Amino acid sequence: MSYDIRDLALAQRGHQRIQWASRHMPVLNQLKEEFATEQAFRGKRIAASLHITTETAVLLSALQAGGAEIALSASNPLSTKDDVCAALVEDGIHVYAQYGEDLPTYQCHIKQALAIDPHLVMDDGADLIIALHNSPAGGSVVAGIEETTSGVVRARALAADKLLRFPVIAVNDTPTKHYFDNRYGTGQNTIDGILRATNTFLAGATLVVAGYGWCGRGIAMRARGMGARVIVCEINAIRALEAVMDGLQVLSMAEAAPLGDIFVTATGMAGVIRPEHFLAMKDGALLANSGHFDVEIDVAGLRQIATGEQEVREHLSEYQLPNGRAVYLLAQGRLVGQVAAEASPAAVMDLSFADQALCTHYLLNAQHQLAPGVYDVPSDIDERVAQLKLQALDIKLDTLSPEQVAYQHSWQYGTEG
Amino acid sequence: MSYDIRDLALAQRGHQRIQWASRHMPVLNQLKEEFATEQAFRGKRIAASLHITTETAVLLSALQAGGAEIALSASNPLSTKDDVCAALVEDGIHVYAQYGEDLPTYQCHIKQALAIDPHLVMDDGADLIIALHNSPAGGSVVAGIEETTSGVVRARALAADKLLRFPVIAVNDTPTKHYFDNRYGTGQNTIDGILRATNTFLAGATLVVAGYGWCGRGIAMRARGMGARVIVCEINAIRALEAVMDGLQVLSMAEAAPLGDIFVTATGMAGVIRPEHFLAMKDGALLANSGHFDVEIDVAGLRQIATGEQEVREHLSEYQLPNGRAVYLLAQGRLVGQVAAEASPAAVMDLSFADQALCTHYLLNAQHQLAPGVYDVPSDIDERVAQLKLQALDIKLDTLSPEQVAYQHSWQYGTEG
Amino acid sequence: MSYDIRDLALAQRGHQRIQWASRHMPVLNQLKEEFATEQAFRGKRIAASLHITTETAVLLSALQAGGAEIALSASNPLSTKDDVCAALVEDGIHVYAQYGEDLPTYQCHIKQALAIDPHLVMDDGADLIIALHNSPAGGSVVAGIEETTSGVVRARALAADKLLRFPVIAVNDTPTKHYFDNRYGTGQNTIDGILRATNTFLAGATLVVAGYGWCGRGIAMRARGMGARVIVCEINAIRALEAVMDGLQVLSMAEAAPLGDIFVTATGMAGVIRPEHFLAMKDGALLANSGHFDVEIDVAGLRQIATGEQEVREHLSEYQLPNGRAVYLLAQGRLVGQVAAEASPAAVMDLSFADQALCTHYLLNAQHQLAPGVYDVPSDIDERVAQLKLQALDIKLDTLSPEQVAYQHSWQYGTEG
Amino acid sequence: MSYDIRDLALAQRGHQRIQWASRHMPVLNQLKEEFATEQAFRGKRIAASLHITTETAVLLSALQAGGAEIALSASNPLSTKDDVCAALVEDGIHVYAQYGEDLPTYQCHIKQALAIDPHLVMDDGADLIIALHNSPAGGSVVAGIEETTSGVVRARALAADKLLRFPVIAVNDTPTKHYFDNRYGTGQNTIDGILRATNTFLAGATLVVAGYGWCGRGIAMRARGMGARVIVCEINAIRALEAVMDGLQVLSMAEAAPLGDIFVTATGMAGVIRPEHFLAMKDGALLANSGHFDVEIDVAGLRQIATGEQEVREHLSEYQLPNGRAVYLLAQGRLVGQVAAEASPAAVMDLSFADQALCTHYLLNAQHQLAPGVYDVPSDIDERVAQLKLQALDIKLDTLSPEQVAYQHSWQYGTEG
Repeated sequence: MSYDIRDLALAQRGHQRIQWASRHMPVLNQLKEEFATEQAFRGKRIAASLHITTETAVLLSALQAGGAEIALSASNPLSTKDDVCAALVEDGIHVYAQYGEDLPTYQCHIKQALAIDPHLVMDDGADLIIALHNSPAGGSVVAGIEETTSGVVRARALAADKLLRFPVIAVNDTPTKHYFDNRYGTGQNTIDGILRATNTFLAGATLVVAGYGWCGRGIAMRARGMGARVIVCEINAIRALEAVMDGLQVLSMAEAAPLGDIFVTATGMAGVIRPEHFLAMKDGALLANSGHFDVEIDVAGLRQIATGEQEVREHLSEYQLPNGRAVYLLAQGRLVGQVAAEASPAAVMDLSFADQALCTHYLLNAQHQLAPGVYDVPSDIDERVAQLKLQALDIKLDTLSPEQVAYQHSWQYGTEG
Repeated sequence: MSYDIRDLALAQRGHQRIQWASRHMPVLNQLKEEFATEQAFRGKRIAASLHITTETAVLLSALQAGGAEIALSASNPLSTKDDVCAALVEDGIHVYAQYGEDLPTYQCHIKQALAIDPHLVMDDGADLIIALHNSPAGGSVVAGIEETTSGVVRARALAADKLLRFPVIAVNDTPTKHYFDNRYGTGQNTIDGILRATNTFLAGATLVVAGYGWCGRGIAMRARGMGARVIVCEINAIRALEAVMDGLQVLSMAEAAPLGDIFVTATGMAGVIRPEHFLAMKDGALLANSGHFDVEIDVAGLRQIATGEQEVREHLSEYQLPNGRAVYLLAQGRLVGQVAAEASPAAVMDLSFADQALCTHYLLNAQHQLAPGVYDVPSDIDERVAQLKLQALDIKLDTLSPEQVAYQHSWQYGTEG
Repeated sequence: MSYDIRDLALAQRGHQRIQWASRHMPVLNQLKEEFATEQAFRGKRIAASLHITTETAVLLSALQAGGAEIALSASNPLSTKDDVCAALVEDGIHVYAQYGEDLPTYQCHIKQALAIDPHLVMDDGADLIIALHNSPAGGSVVAGIEETTSGVVRARALAADKLLRFPVIAVNDTPTKHYFDNRYGTGQNTIDGILRATNTFLAGATLVVAGYGWCGRGIAMRARGMGARVIVCEINAIRALEAVMDGLQVLSMAEAAPLGDIFVTATGMAGVIRPEHFLAMKDGALLANSGHFDVEIDVAGLRQIATGEQEVREHLSEYQLPNGRAVYLLAQGRLVGQVAAEASPAAVMDLSFADQALCTHYLLNAQHQLAPGVYDVPSDIDERVAQLKLQALDIKLDTLSPEQVAYQHSWQYGTEG
Repeated sequence: MSYDIRDLALAQRGHQRIQWASRHMPVLNQLKEEFATEQAFRGKRIAASLHITTETAVLLSALQAGGAEIALSASNPLSTKDDVCAALVEDGIHVYAQYGEDLPTYQCHIKQALAIDPHLVMDDGADLIIALHNSPAGGSVVAGIEETTSGVVRARALAADKLLRFPVIAVNDTPTKHYFDNRYGTGQNTIDGILRATNTFLAGATLVVAGYGWCGRGIAMRARGMGARVIVCEINAIRALEAVMDGLQVLSMAEAAPLGDIFVTATGMAGVIRPEHFLAMKDGALLANSGHFDVEIDVAGLRQIATGEQEVREHLSEYQLPNGRAVYLLAQGRLVGQVAAEASPAAVMDLSFADQALCTHYLLNAQHQLAPGVYDVPSDIDERVAQLKLQALDIKLDTLSPEQVAYQHSWQYGTEG
């Protein structure tokens, strides 16, 4: 068996921690049982590029129980948990990832994962999809799955250029994923990452969040819930108006820069906070990113203007500026909740990964022949995941009576009815 | 000039109150100027069935400034403000509406409004659209606009039955309408209506909201913000999960009935709270509806089981139950924020009515020939309304640099970038 | 029987509305039964100067059931409900109050109430207490009770000048009063009053609250819960820091004046918002007061600089300013929740008035001979009121075991224990 | 120089981290300068038993700059940071503490700290005070300072037994301490500790907080702000009512036990969660304590009924119960925010420790001769600390004009004024 990980001896701790995550993923565990019974993925090979966390291990374990052969590389050099890698290798998964690996190694690992000649690629940032498209066509791949906003943007750009070779399901875009994982999951892990990296005091702090998408509003709600005053920066007029009416202050980044104590980017866009902003900030300002790629804060630009740099705590670097002030970069500008904390909790990843598992099942099922393109998660999958989660939480919904269903489809009822 | 209103002498007070609303509708006022300059609706006739409030008057004034001839009936017998009717008649609009009119009069007024032979019908609950479809085909009507969830459901049902005769734009479904008016507007006016009708104490009260759509979550947020404990009832699994993760308790109505102090329906569905629920409620429970039609609380069923009924305050009726308890119905089960309070504030109606005004302009423009069907608001209209509102609020957005636009459309950038 | 009210014919509506309030005052109703059984106030005369609301009627009814003879005047010319006055007269209480009475009448009514030669005065702003001290000593009065922050300040000033002639219990200062009535009650009725007077849109509005005492923080919490952005002005450093750490912006009034859409005073201080502030405000700014006296907003100063004045809605006056802008004064600068809405809801007045009822019992009980001075509510009264309320809400507390009581009083347990 | 620490080589990292804390403690740094200038503590010896964190180091550094000789032991065996100990020793402070030391060592270290023969003891849980009182009288000690609720309870019990030998200032009870550190500081660090120990998902979780004092309400607010549903358990009727009106559910622990996903104690009482509660809990329930001593959760009782125990993550122990379920204890039942996270952030400890520093100054000043007893912080100290903090935050207060001061002290102004 092929693999490249830090230390196989970490497997026991990995298994223990995976077990803790698994306790909080009832939907995925139920799917695992179903997959095992029907041997849903017998003979199928899957390559995955994911944040290698305990929750990811539970997903892969469900696919493996269904008979799949799996190769795994990282989707971020700093989010890999070495103990999880070890446990997965012990379970028979080909893992090519080490915490803190450099970029050439990271890219080499992607190639190694693809060497399995996968039927399906499962992506978190589209690195596998892009790697396949940067290589000659061919191989067994019939479909892809993409989990993040950033990756979906890339897949759509590929499709717009008429280059996409196979269907890709945009798991990110489905309600049971982005309403939950982005808002509540990233919302929590961003706060968690900021606290672990800095132990800063949120009550009374001014937190500037760039982007009021699902991640951004999850962060804003929680920051406010912890006592911070929140300022939002946006490029979209409707989102900006929502932020206003949610009671938040909306400013341009140029206006917000001198006011913030903590800055968080969650946009999917590059160069959101730039040198002109760093220079306008208060002494001691904290800079954190929650977007998938490390391009939202212009770290290169920061390094260029800095007169000095030192690590003051784990995941916290001080940059002295020519104006005599200092700003502090968290987690090197990589996604703070993955790097400085432990990514989204298992209980919410249960939804996203159940979507992934069911989409894998859908795409590897010969009946569904899809043309190349970016697809939504089939709505019955979305609905089923939500239903399973509510059952696990023991929550009852109301149901419509036949009369109510009739009412819903009639146009005769009204003020006169 | 033809009209049927309560008392023309109320016109001065109506004008004064309309002026107060107009102060808070900068977007509509800007559109009014544009319409007047280009005489955008010269020669066009519009029939409208709307809640006749001060904000509606500002909308109609903008259309009239563009040259339109307008006939107006109510969209709810209890939401009509007689002083506004008088002011509108004084301004030359054909108004057929009186507060508290009975159902036959209400329906007769709809027919009178349609007697203008409109080119366009503007609806709030689809009563005009349905009335036209219950009559023989013919006339000048080329398009309709529908403002509410309930009305859009009816228009879609008509389209599904292949009976819809002209294009209808579902203003309700556009972000600048339902994200704002439904959530923040109805959210506020529902709380306002409950307080005016009852002076009940929200802090520590248990408020049960049926429906966690945009209206429902606006109500839930505000009820909580006023100190209430909120329970949500839903039929949709994804919305139910959102409510759970927003920190609210989710129960079936049968489970919630004995727990609630205040019940609010916001579903668009009939028979949401029924006799079996009334009988399970605490003595003193309050029943309010925020849906468009008065069918969400089963008032007929309540009357059937009640052993006595009396009005205890304006807009508040006591129903004695055979179990010795009493429940209290607000505003006869009609939408509480329109009847017991003053509907959504001008500042948020500014958005919805700007959508209506611009959609009217779009539909009456000969260039846009649409087949019968239910359509979304064109996205450039939506975007423009939001932009105008932000300008009026003096709020600045960030804008993308050319490099950022390129980043957005590229698939090459990634972890390797 | 002597009285001076608007119209005795309003009694039936008054009774009906009092009945509605009484439903939500279980503690007071239980005390009423006790007082009636023991005829607790037989032969005692009480003069009261209170906001004459339905809740006040329930309090007086409890005292009357105990045998007291009662004379009542208003504590604010604009908070008197004429239908309540009528109902009280019908029940045999001497009422001297009419809605909107002018100042000479108001003062005359105070004298008429005192003509009963009371054993106890019950005050809301200390007008009775002050009137007694502005007259020669003598009469039957043995004690007073004061309900508001503003009135307690006056009683303490009198005591500090060594002029106070009898003991006064500061009901306002007891936890079951000011933690609840001031924070949750005034918090709610202020929002309610603002909405009824203006139908303004709170979501996205900037609300400036002057004073972060219990009233101010109740208003701030609720304004925020309705979607407003809140700015706090304070003179006290500790309260200001609390506001900061509650996530609110703290500014001086000079800094806040140009930023606010809505201003609310809740300070107990005079001249909090002055001409220099009015002139710095945005066109359309709203001015509301929640303090007991109409001195917090400098209305005289506003009138002096105004170039025009008109009433634009009930309880809403426009003042044109020399700079071309206009500001809007609610309820003539009197307490907005009492005048434009219905004062604090019955469910919370149940606590304050239970305190008043039990303090009356305590003070009229010959055993408690107190020297002149301002006293706290006896803590067993406070505790009893809270316990009775919890019982009415059917809420269970934990209780300490004997071992836990021992732990509480021991100093031996610690890290070594 | 005498000390007993883990490893002096950790000093550099300690200094670096202390520097990070110091950045966020502007008030303490200003006091440090003042103390240094006046050599305020020259010739004085101070023994301290404190959580040995980076913030504590900044406090001790300020005292040392004033000339004090300092000996330090821990106030909790698990909250000691070994790198901070090393840095302090390098700076010349006698430190007797190691992370995870056993109870005999812990107690021995207390004795070693007292061997300095202090003039003043500074306590966090009263262990030094109690140790002095368990020894024969004598020595140089003239005063004590106590920082926690739990320690003040012990000092008061000692005073009630007429055993207290010297004055003790209850820093815990002063507004700039418990309004801030307890509410906002412990509120945040408790959430932080729970997340670090478990990575649990707060959105939608039911969190039961025992105790609605300042710590408890800080925890409740933040838990809710992170999306949890909060249940409160109380023994005090007034606090329970406040929780109700803050929109929280109030239940007895017996009622709450089967409902909670996460339990947090913040009471200062022993045996709050007991075996009968553990057995009623859901499988997977989390148990955390935020009170000073590890007695709030009955850990001994839990061990007694458990059929198995294992550590599943750092600071997280699983206890299998005879009913087949498991519950999870965080941080061995010791204060979770100190043990699993990093205690309250520097920015809020700046207030508490400024109080401590100024009280030290006050007590060691020969002019203030106090009899044995428990004293409040002098109010001018409290006020000064708040003022200094506001200055550091660049926040302006309003100030009273002479007319306003006069108004405040007059009883003549009123409705007639």
